[in-house]
Amino acid sequence: MKDLKPLSHLANCFEKLSGVGKKTASRYAFNIVEKFSEADVEEFARALLDCKYKIKNCPSCGMLTDKETCDICRDEERDPNVLIVVRDTKDVYAIEKTHRYRGRYHVLNGLISPLDGIGPDEININSLEKRIKDEDIKELIIATSFTPSGETTALYLNRLFKDRGVTISRIGYGLPAGGDIEYVDELTLLKALEAKQKID
Amino acid sequence: MKDLKPLSHLANCFEKLSGVGKKTASRYAFNIVEKFSEADVEEFARALLDCKYKIKNCPSCGMLTDKETCDICRDEERDPNVLIVVRDTKDVYAIEKTHRYRGRYHVLNGLISPLDGIGPDEININSLEKRIKDEDIKELIIATSFTPSGETTALYLNRLFKDRGVTISRIGYGLPAGGDIEYVDELTLLKALEAKQKID
Repeated sequence: MKDLKPLSHLANCFEKLSGVGKKTASRYAFNIVEKFSEADVEEFARALLDCKYKIKNCPSCGMLTDKETCDICRDEERDPNVLIVVRDTKDVYAIEKTHRYRGRYHVLNGLISPLDGIGPDEININSLEKRIKDEDIKELIIATSFTPSGETTALYLNRLFKDRGVTISRIGYGLPAGGDIEYVDELTLLKALEAKQKID
Repeated sequence: MKDLKPLSHLANCFEKLSGVGKKTASRYAFNIVEKFSEADVEEFARALLDCKYKIKNCPSCGMLTDKETCDICRDEERDPNVLIVVRDTKDVYAIEKTHRYRGRYHVLNGLISPLDGIGPDEININSLEKRIKDEDIKELIIATSFTPSGETTALYLNRLFKDRGVTISRIGYGLPAGGDIEYVDELTLLKALEAKQKID
């Protein structure tokens, strides 16, 4: 018996999601055929397209947004002179959950990783440099993770910006070594923010 | 910061897949925004709709098909007098992988499970009765799993059809107790088919 083409095609699409293997992808595809109503499937398809076409990166900070610029950049009550630099948008969500930080962000969309061929030009550093020049940034808190590429990126940023009149610190206390910051609990993140240390 | 609506909406859709929780669903949604190209997302959306609208249950055996009747029912080289009765379509794929069975199937789309309020009328038994009457079925191999509802269904089918001139057997040797047959390896399934035992 041949496989049904629409089914294996859908399974291939699911398999492109990170962490989804052949078996799981095929289970999801069967699920769609057998458990989802037609209305559910249409909603799913629409939600996929909506997500892709309505959500863009904020031209200023790189955060995801469905407007011209993101909620955080537009929020006038937030301190425009402080930036937390993070690897990706999920890290912004994680830090926002502490409900304590009132500055803005800069999303690098990656970390420097020479072994993977990712240098400073492959991530959002040029735009950060431009912001520091144009937006009167007084403080930069580098919140990349304690991994080799997170550390490399922090060192690189410190060297690049330390003579520009910006106070540069590194998120500190509490972040477990080798961990991805998006999975850290709120309290640990709060501690890490409170214990930020100036890089000297 | 509010969540982005299109993103949380998509995550809700992913969460309807069985075995997908809140965190995984949101990870998949981020994946779509950040790693999928627009072409990938459009293909995904099309594949979802294709799957739902092109694939139907075969009116004869209940198997999935994108034609009028399924490949197996249309295959004239297959023995029309023998039916394997299974719980769902995934079980058909599993048995087909042994490349040994040359009869046809009947997909119940469920098992009798009084505790869940599923009686004989809620699954495809009426159509099986009609097939036994109309299609000169000589042999019925009941390949439901060795779980309480699988056994209940097998006993019920045996009682219902044993006086209709049909040889009824139960898939046997090798199927691990409590296991779902879709996850059994081919060799075990082959053994189980060879060692089918007449119900007396």
